[in-house]
Amino acid sequence: MNKWIQQLPEGVQDTLIEQCYNRRKIESKLRQMFHVSGYDEVDTPLFEYLDLFEGETASIGQEQMYKFFEPGSRIMVLKPDYTMPIARIAATKMKEYPFPKRLSYFGNVYRYGEQGQTGQREIAQAGIELLGSREAEADAEVIALAVESLLKIGLTEFQIDIGQVEFFKGLVEEASLEEADSEKLRLLIHQKNELALEQQMKDLDISPEIKNNLLQLPMMFGNGEVLESAKALTHNERCVRALDNINQVYQILENYGLSEYIAIDLGMVQSLNYYTGIIFQGMTREMGYPICGGGRYDTLISEFGMEVPATGFALEVNRILIALERQSGLERLPGTDILFVCKRQTNQEDYKKIQEIKSEGYRVEVYLPVDNDQTPEEYANLKGIPKIIKCDDGNKEGPK
Amino acid sequence: MNKWIQQLPEGVQDTLIEQCYNRRKIESKLRQMFHVSGYDEVDTPLFEYLDLFEGETASIGQEQMYKFFEPGSRIMVLKPDYTMPIARIAATKMKEYPFPKRLSYFGNVYRYGEQGQTGQREIAQAGIELLGSREAEADAEVIALAVESLLKIGLTEFQIDIGQVEFFKGLVEEASLEEADSEKLRLLIHQKNELALEQQMKDLDISPEIKNNLLQLPMMFGNGEVLESAKALTHNERCVRALDNINQVYQILENYGLSEYIAIDLGMVQSLNYYTGIIFQGMTREMGYPICGGGRYDTLISEFGMEVPATGFALEVNRILIALERQSGLERLPGTDILFVCKRQTNQEDYKKIQEIKSEGYRVEVYLPVDNDQTPEEYANLKGIPKIIKCDDGNKEGPK
Repeated sequence: MNKWIQQLPEGVQDTLIEQCYNRRKIESKLRQMFHVSGYDEVDTPLFEYLDLFEGETASIGQEQMYKFFEPGSRIMVLKPDYTMPIARIAATKMKEYPFPKRLSYFGNVYRYGEQGQTGQREIAQAGIELLGSREAEADAEVIALAVESLLKIGLTEFQIDIGQVEFFKGLVEEASLEEADSEKLRLLIHQKNELALEQQMKDLDISPEIKNNLLQLPMMFGNGEVLESAKALTHNERCVRALDNINQVYQILENYGLSEYIAIDLGMVQSLNYYTGIIFQGMTREMGYPICGGGRYDTLISEFGMEVPATGFALEVNRILIALERQSGLERLPGTDILFVCKRQTNQEDYKKIQEIKSEGYRVEVYLPVDNDQTPEEYANLKGIPKIIKCDDGNKEGPK
Repeated sequence: MNKWIQQLPEGVQDTLIEQCYNRRKIESKLRQMFHVSGYDEVDTPLFEYLDLFEGETASIGQEQMYKFFEPGSRIMVLKPDYTMPIARIAATKMKEYPFPKRLSYFGNVYRYGEQGQTGQREIAQAGIELLGSREAEADAEVIALAVESLLKIGLTEFQIDIGQVEFFKGLVEEASLEEADSEKLRLLIHQKNELALEQQMKDLDISPEIKNNLLQLPMMFGNGEVLESAKALTHNERCVRALDNINQVYQILENYGLSEYIAIDLGMVQSLNYYTGIIFQGMTREMGYPICGGGRYDTLISEFGMEVPATGFALEVNRILIALERQSGLERLPGTDILFVCKRQTNQEDYKKIQEIKSEGYRVEVYLPVDNDQTPEEYANLKGIPKIIKCDDGNKEGPK
C-alpha cells in the first residue's frame, strides 16, 4: 500500500460528519440572514489568473498564493480572497444591476504563510460586499450585519473592533516619512510593540508632537471616548476627517443599540494598500485570531476602470465553528429515526410508505446485510436507532 | 488596465445571481433528501497528493488532473473525484461508524480533457456512497435515490440507464483477448460504433459465437426483455452471474414502481478499472451528457487494506440546472420586499423593527445614497421593490 494515500497535505483537513453538519447549519443561517438583508449570492471560479490578484491594491502577496501552470496559459492561482473576483463580476457582468449592489458569497479561499496564522490553508468564508455608497451608513450597515450574523449563529460573546486607516495615514503623511520607514512603524503599531516603536522613531526626523501621537496609537482602543482623546491630539485635516467618519459610524451603531459589541481601535493598521477608511475585525475570547474582518475599499474597483466606493466583510466559518463549540457547544447531528427491514419483494406500497415518512422529515434507513452478518437489531443498537419497522407491517402503522 | 484581470481561464465560469440562487435551491433539496435517507455529509480538502488518485482502480488519468507543486511536498492535485477521498475517510477516520456506512458530499471536482466533454473543468457534484453491502438491494437503493433526487429537484423527463460491467468482462475473458485488443473493442462498444467493431474483430481469433455476442452488445439496450435475450446468448458463468445480478436490481426497482425511469444498457462499458458490477447513468433529452452517474466499485477500498464492497453515484449539479431550465424553467430569485428610508438618527426602535421584519422572512433593504443622486423612489423603481417605508412612520406599521 502506498502510505501517501492516507495522508493529507499540510494545512488542509477533512470535515467529518458532526462538523460538516454544523458547518452547513451555520452557512444556512448566514445565507438566510444575507438574503433577507437584500444581499444576492454569487460565486466565482476556484482559480483565476494571477493578474487579478496582483493589482496595486493587493493585500495578499504572490508568495502566499497557490500557483499553478498550464502550457499556453498565464499563471493561475487558487482564489486567495473573494473581494477581487466579486469586484470583477460587479464591474464586468452586473452593469445593469443598480447601485448600491449588495452581493454575498460562500466558499473557500486558499493562502499560505503569514495570513494563515492558524496553519489553515483552506479557509471557509461567508461574506458580503456593498458597492456604491460612500456613506457612514453603509459602513454601519455591514458592521451591524456582521453583529447580527454572529448573534444569529449563536455566538454571544464577541467584540467587533473598529479602526479607520486614514488616521494613521494622516499621521505619517504629516511626518513626511519615507515609505520604508512608515511601513516599519505600521508593523510595530499593528503588533502593539510600543517599546520597539519608540526605539524605531528615535532616529527619525519627526516633530515631537507627531512622534507622541504615533507612540500613543497602539493604546488608542476602548469605547467612544478614545475618539475624544484622539481628537484632542491632532489638527491634521486627514486625521480629523477620519475621526469624524469613525465617530459617525460608531454613533449609528450606538443608536442601533449595538454598542455592547463594538470597540474602537485606532491602532488597526493592517492591509493599508487595500483599505481606505473604516476597518474592522471580530474577536472572541476563545480564539487568538479574528473570526471576521472587513472594511472600506474605495479604490479597489477602479482597477476595472470605474470609481466605485465599497465596503464589506468576510466571516471565517471554521474559526466561528470553533468559537461556537467552546461557547455554547455544537448541535448534535440528528440520528436515524427508523430502520426499515424489507424483503426483496418489497412492493410499491412499502416503498411509497417509506417515501412518505421521509417527506415528513424523518430520517430513515433501510436495513442491508453486511459481511459481519449483524442483525437489524444489532445494527439499530450500534447506531442508536430507536425504532425498527418490518415492511410487512410497516405499511400499516405510522412512524410513532 | 491589465486586460487579463477581466478574463477567466478556460473551462471555468462565474455563477451569477439567478443561477446561484437556483443552484443553492437544488443543493438544499438534495441535502435534505440525502439526510432523510440516512446519508451523513462529509467534506474533503480541495487538493490532495496525486498518489491517492493513481491507484490501480483509477478511472481518471493524471493527464486530466490539475497538478501543482510546492518545494518539499509531493505532487498535489485538485480533487478530480469525490469517491477516493471519501473511501480514504471511511477507511481511516470512520472505523467506529458501523457498516453499512452511508455518506454524502457536495462540492466541485476538477478535470480537463476527455471527461469534461462539455468544456467545463470545474464540475459541481452532489453524491452519495454506500459502503459495506454486496446486495442487489444496495445497488437498487442508490439508483432509487438518484431517481427520487431528480424528481425532488423538479426534473420530470429523464432515464437511468443501467448496465453490468461483468457481462462484458465475462465475454472478453472467454475470448482470451489481449488487454490491448479488449480495450479497443471496449471503446468501440462504448461509442456504439458497430461497423468499426465488426472490422476490428475480423482479425481477432475469437469463436464466432463470442464475436456475435460482442457485436450485439451495442444494441443490448431497452427494457427488461433485453436481459432475457442476453441470457439466451451465453452460458459463460461470469456473464450469467452478471445478468442475474442486474435482473435482481431491475426487479427491485420495478417493484418500487420506478420502471418508467429505468432502462437496461449492457453496452455501458466505461471506467472498467473502477466499476465491478452495476453501472448506471442518467440522461435527459435536453443534454448530450449524463446528468448523473454511478455504480458498484467493490475493489477500490481495498487500496486502503480493507475489503469493502461499495456503490454510489454523483449528480452533475450544473448539467441538472441546465436540464431543469429547459424542462420547467428555473425559479425566479425573490426580489426585495421593502425599502426602508431612514435618517442618520435612526433609533433603536426603527432598527429593531427592521430586524423583526427580516426575521419574518421578508427581504429588506435600507436606502443608501449613491453617486448618481437617485431618490429612494427611483431606486425602488429600478429594483422593482413594491413598498417603501420611511423610518419615521415605519415603526408604526407592518410590512403589508
